[in-house]
Amino acid sequence: MQHCDTLILASWCIPVEPHELVLANYAVAINDGQIVELLPAADARNRYSAGAIIERPDHVLIPGFVNAHTHGAMTLFRGLADDLPLERWLKEIIWPAENRFVGPEMVRDGTRLAIAEMLLGGCTCFSDQYFFPEIIAQTAVDSHMRAMVGTPVLEFATPWAGNATEYLNKGADLVHDRYADHSLVSTCFAPHSTAAVSDKSFGDLRVMADQLDKRIQIHLHESAKEIEDAVAATGMRPIDRLEALGLVNASLTAVHAVHLTDDEINRFVDAGVSVVHCPRSNLKLADGIARVTAMRDAGLIVGLGTDGAASNNVLDMLGEMRIAALLAKAQAGDASVLSAANALRMATLEGARTIGLDDQIGSIEVGKSADLVCIDLMYLNSQPVYDPVSQLVYTVQPQQIKDVWVAGRHQVEAGALVQIDQAEILERTSEWRQKINSQIKPGRPNRENR
Amino acid sequence: MQHCDTLILASWCIPVEPHELVLANYAVAINDGQIVELLPAADARNRYSAGAIIERPDHVLIPGFVNAHTHGAMTLFRGLADDLPLERWLKEIIWPAENRFVGPEMVRDGTRLAIAEMLLGGCTCFSDQYFFPEIIAQTAVDSHMRAMVGTPVLEFATPWAGNATEYLNKGADLVHDRYADHSLVSTCFAPHSTAAVSDKSFGDLRVMADQLDKRIQIHLHESAKEIEDAVAATGMRPIDRLEALGLVNASLTAVHAVHLTDDEINRFVDAGVSVVHCPRSNLKLADGIARVTAMRDAGLIVGLGTDGAASNNVLDMLGEMRIAALLAKAQAGDASVLSAANALRMATLEGARTIGLDDQIGSIEVGKSADLVCIDLMYLNSQPVYDPVSQLVYTVQPQQIKDVWVAGRHQVEAGALVQIDQAEILERTSEWRQKINSQIKPGRPNRENR
Repeated sequence: MQHCDTLILASWCIPVEPHELVLANYAVAINDGQIVELLPAADARNRYSAGAIIERPDHVLIPGFVNAHTHGAMTLFRGLADDLPLERWLKEIIWPAENRFVGPEMVRDGTRLAIAEMLLGGCTCFSDQYFFPEIIAQTAVDSHMRAMVGTPVLEFATPWAGNATEYLNKGADLVHDRYADHSLVSTCFAPHSTAAVSDKSFGDLRVMADQLDKRIQIHLHESAKEIEDAVAATGMRPIDRLEALGLVNASLTAVHAVHLTDDEINRFVDAGVSVVHCPRSNLKLADGIARVTAMRDAGLIVGLGTDGAASNNVLDMLGEMRIAALLAKAQAGDASVLSAANALRMATLEGARTIGLDDQIGSIEVGKSADLVCIDLMYLNSQPVYDPVSQLVYTVQPQQIKDVWVAGRHQVEAGALVQIDQAEILERTSEWRQKINSQIKPGRPNRENR
Repeated sequence: MQHCDTLILASWCIPVEPHELVLANYAVAINDGQIVELLPAADARNRYSAGAIIERPDHVLIPGFVNAHTHGAMTLFRGLADDLPLERWLKEIIWPAENRFVGPEMVRDGTRLAIAEMLLGGCTCFSDQYFFPEIIAQTAVDSHMRAMVGTPVLEFATPWAGNATEYLNKGADLVHDRYADHSLVSTCFAPHSTAAVSDKSFGDLRVMADQLDKRIQIHLHESAKEIEDAVAATGMRPIDRLEALGLVNASLTAVHAVHLTDDEINRFVDAGVSVVHCPRSNLKLADGIARVTAMRDAGLIVGLGTDGAASNNVLDMLGEMRIAALLAKAQAGDASVLSAANALRMATLEGARTIGLDDQIGSIEVGKSADLVCIDLMYLNSQPVYDPVSQLVYTVQPQQIKDVWVAGRHQVEAGALVQIDQAEILERTSEWRQKINSQIKPGRPNRENR
């Protein structure tokens, strides 16, 4: 008998790699936070002496979701300003709220709320870009959550830094140095958008990212207006400008990419750029529907992200996966595009590739980290089960997520957080609500009677 | 002190009518299954001596959702054939499965599964069209669920009837006579589509519907192909043909209506036709996105439906409401259209209007039936609460639905069915899965390794 820390046995296991494989009555053996074997349940019982045996009949075992783009701390602004035109939303509500409240404490409390919500939703890794990235990284470590932490880069002053040079230097010192070789936290650069960063700063960023060997994640071609404004200001579409500055390469992740021409898709393919699709945010802010099928057919890697809770409003990868599959079909006029298996792949392995962590996470493979999720299909809304992949993508609700492991640590059991103090998070959230509500007038149009 | 059966006190009450009203710390008094008063919680405690007092802090109380279009029994085919092109889906899987399995027992068991799922999802009334409507009606009564049961009308034979005359006569005898004045079950006619019914049968239907004073609900302009085929076969678009046959009037409910011209919208407004929007089904079957904002701006009443579980795949009105709001924004290119309050109105009162029951349900008003839902907002994903309407539409998960009443009967308590035997439903569903799976080859493309 071979020892392992944990043996998980489930009715179905979907390893994601190989693609479209569904294994019935399989087991995953975990040791030291890593997957050591994937084998039939019957064999596993004979081969392993396990510290803990987790038996999950009627459950499907999958790799944890990778939320490839969010702004975790913005959970504290969730629902503060919905159904407003984009410009009013930003200028009247979100920016004033950020200027007034963003700080180490807000980022810590908001990120903790986000991490707790994501864990309950089966997400085991998130890529975040927000102010005070050193706090985001520390909060992830304290919560034992996997994170890709992006150093924000902007030309103008915010509560975290005064100018682009300060953003870059603070990022290098506070974030990249400290987490150069951390098991849970990785880092990248996250310039906000082409509109927010000058040519000079993009040049400095490129040098620093090359030196530190870091990826760059940027909001790109999110809205038609962003592109129009860029053309008016610079004579170039944002992608053209980034290309001229030497930033369109395999280290670049383009977030949103709602508006890409065929030619731009092909240039991304040639350069090895990857894309993060945030379908609900794009709908809610009226940006449009990204051309996911065209991008994937051309060969682009497309991950999925929730975006921040001020524009979604939940950090729920199940919902994001489902809507991605549904939207793609309507967009293509073909019900067979973006199958359930492909949507799951985007929410896991392809997301991991967009943040450069696919050697560690995104699939159930020997040697990868034990970032795993067990989902109970014995719910009315998921029955009968003809195809567990279909039920997972098109029917599962968050409450069916029963177990979540991050690097082998059991974070969610029986659908509840077992390492994180949910009551304390709710209490802190309530305190923030009172503070924010008393100072920011929520912008709800036509809502007279309250 | 005045007596009432039940007094429900919640942190927030959204009556839906008046529009956009949110009442803090309100109570609803229920007697004999009806709403007798809506008043401040403090007053309610002084005024009423209640058989049961239900206190729900942090909850929002709303009228039950009205699922204005579904095929309940198709829950038993849920996930049997996803990600297939529409024609293959219908011809290779769904129709063979229906011909082989549809019968009184299947319709009873499938409808029970659907009712249980809908109750847990906060839905207190559904409009169904499927074979064996007399079984659907009886199942609704047995489950104490409110239903609008449509008699299917088709030209061709199915397990229920042999030709259009038989459908109509069976409907009149088995359904309309028996439920002419029932507190829970109402009836209508549900011709499948213009392609499935001849001019003569539409004429017979019109006479019978007039005589019995019944509404007509039909799948109309669901896909571009439906319209093309109709033009090729008859020289007319389906709406034009219905109009020529005298069926475009205030008794008509057009389900889907994905493809309407401006002129068709205006003709619907003039005629008083109402529409049921089924956004997830329309996406999944690649039909497109209905022009909801254009329709509502023109003055049409638009309800929401889940459609059947073979094309959605869940009977979850929360999800339907959310995606309706999100899609409308992207379609209009304006984040301010179809606000949360309007989406909630579509999922309740407007849905009730599309089935002619708005005098009884759809809002929390004195004299209406006590079809009510309590939703707990003290979940991480719904916190903080700046605006309960926003949180309800953009963040709530089905597990937050804690109490559901149908005509004053407490059907869901603490998020669980208390009148219906869930275990028995799951057992019957499992038996159907085995039967269906052994005889219908699930049509999953490119899924080799199982």
